Amino acid sequence: MDFDNTVRTELSDLGEFGLIKHLTQHIDLNQSSTIKGVGDDAAVIDNTNLQTVITTDMLVEGVHFDLSYVPLKHLGYKSVIVNLSDIYAMNAEPRQIVVSIAISSRFGLEAVEELYAGMLLACSKYNVDLVGGDTTSSLSGLVINITAVGAAKTEELVFRNGAKEKNLLCVSGDLGGAYMGLQILEREKAVFKENPNLQPDLSGKDYILERQLKPEARKDVIELLKSLNVKPTAMIDVSDGLSSEILHICSQSNVGVELYEEKIPIDPQTFDTAREFNLDPTLCALSGGEDYELLFTIDMSDYEKIKHSMEISVIGHITNHEKACLMVAKDGSVHALKAQGWNVFDR
Amino acid sequence: MDFDNTVRTELSDLGEFGLIKHLTQHIDLNQSSTIKGVGDDAAVIDNTNLQTVITTDMLVEGVHFDLSYVPLKHLGYKSVIVNLSDIYAMNAEPRQIVVSIAISSRFGLEAVEELYAGMLLACSKYNVDLVGGDTTSSLSGLVINITAVGAAKTEELVFRNGAKEKNLLCVSGDLGGAYMGLQILEREKAVFKENPNLQPDLSGKDYILERQLKPEARKDVIELLKSLNVKPTAMIDVSDGLSSEILHICSQSNVGVELYEEKIPIDPQTFDTAREFNLDPTLCALSGGEDYELLFTIDMSDYEKIKHSMEISVIGHITNHEKACLMVAKDGSVHALKAQGWNVFDR
Repeated sequence: MDFDNTVRTELSDLGEFGLIKHLTQHIDLNQSSTIKGVGDDAAVIDNTNLQTVITTDMLVEGVHFDLSYVPLKHLGYKSVIVNLSDIYAMNAEPRQIVVSIAISSRFGLEAVEELYAGMLLACSKYNVDLVGGDTTSSLSGLVINITAVGAAKTEELVFRNGAKEKNLLCVSGDLGGAYMGLQILEREKAVFKENPNLQPDLSGKDYILERQLKPEARKDVIELLKSLNVKPTAMIDVSDGLSSEILHICSQSNVGVELYEEKIPIDPQTFDTAREFNLDPTLCALSGGEDYELLFTIDMSDYEKIKHSMEISVIGHITNHEKACLMVAKDGSVHALKAQGWNVFDR
Repeated sequence: MDFDNTVRTELSDLGEFGLIKHLTQHIDLNQSSTIKGVGDDAAVIDNTNLQTVITTDMLVEGVHFDLSYVPLKHLGYKSVIVNLSDIYAMNAEPRQIVVSIAISSRFGLEAVEELYAGMLLACSKYNVDLVGGDTTSSLSGLVINITAVGAAKTEELVFRNGAKEKNLLCVSGDLGGAYMGLQILEREKAVFKENPNLQPDLSGKDYILERQLKPEARKDVIELLKSLNVKPTAMIDVSDGLSSEILHICSQSNVGVELYEEKIPIDPQTFDTAREFNLDPTLCALSGGEDYELLFTIDMSDYEKIKHSMEISVIGHITNHEKACLMVAKDGSVHALKAQGWNVFDR
């Protein structure tokens, strides 16, 4: 942890209301749509003439994060990002969040401040207001729940069910990095357990570590598509791995897909690290998850508009073969896509 | 637990998506403002021309509830109610909820179905749509987070900060019952631990047990006030005890209060049970919490309109003595009100 953990103020000294007051006293409200923030029974949002979109996500210690290598500030940041990513995936603009945290007594005030600082940093970067929440104690681990609210014009919203035959399948950024970052962190944790005197070897892994520890939501891609006058026909964010997300779009749109393995964008650092771990880089992209890139389909006529965008890769096309979701491998062989995403209940 | 717990389907057999599909397949959407419910990156709500209000609440096993005596269906019901209560306290209409749950592997599918059944029952009763959520695993206890969204016209919203000198302080229903219900449940749990062959003695305690296990949100009181053409000047729901809620209104409105002990509504069952436990019934009402009644202030000119309402008690009046929040006891002595509500961090 990158904060001074020699200072410790007990949460019980503040009480719930004291803690809330302390944490929220410096919150700025920047959204003109925020009418009332923290401090009443509920927050008030004015989305006059716009649709309101809402999404929620729960992060549980030991399931979604390991505090032995995740700094609290990064955790706070990421917990906001995963929700904003869902709002962008609707082609909407995130505007507000409400935050619930359950904290065990092993945390002092300073630790909670770090967590909050990360959340507020993400809010500030994405112009989102923290307008409410709940703060309680936990008998065991830390639990964070964030609900994000956004707004969009009706005609701007993009759902998962709009993909049509011959649409192009596109993805932003690159895939598999967050998963490989996690493998590095897990490996170094194991090494440290064996020998606490060994320094963790994280050299040359900056990119994939950042993909895991401090992901960003693709606001820039949403803005890029708007500036290019391209409205996706379907969109989803990549949280559970490319494969699982493609299957969501196909099943909800009643279409099939042909994905080209050679087109899947994988960063060299992700590729090399996968090889180091004797993993197939493609499989890491397909099943790794937590990349928070945007997966979307566009009309073929929009291809000219996006073809020079460095941030967007065309990785396949939509077919009318309902339930035939296929990947054409580099060797030309054809494989059915499987949702090999993470099963949180399988442990 | 009142369901057949001999049948057990493992959550890991369904996986996260299977579980979500199973739980959400029978969800009805009844709100015309719900444009898109479960199944995309976010839900979509159309509150055209209305303000959107949002509140969130986290319930943690072992902190907020004890599954040794709380049936899961009741827990699901209550977890929705506590959020709807906050929306009503803004004088708004609750319309949608999103639900996050973290479940340990000691729960099977049937247990989660019970929890959900209780949530959907509350949704149905209050005409609220369940439009999204997150379902994950927990390494220890059950955690439920619900975010509720409501709508109101700008001019209908009631905040905590509008109380004025000479306003009357009112509360709906009666107070302290939920707290005494909890005392009964805790006592019988202790008895059962001592001697598992003894049947719990809950006779004559129906009302206070229901106040604890299956509270309601005061939709009826909001409707009553509307029908009487009374708009409160300030309002809050009673979740942490009367004392704490009065202090919130006073501090946010910069006013003082005189509360009359003899006017505090206490049900005879609450009163008698408090006596049984050698507790002061007034103190139970002041500090007990979880009653989910509405505490509000009204202009004195509205007194005639509400004076015959059985559901509303006038319990005091607002003064301009900032920070002088006083209770006049039955014997005429005057005491400063203290926030003796629950400190979740003090354990």
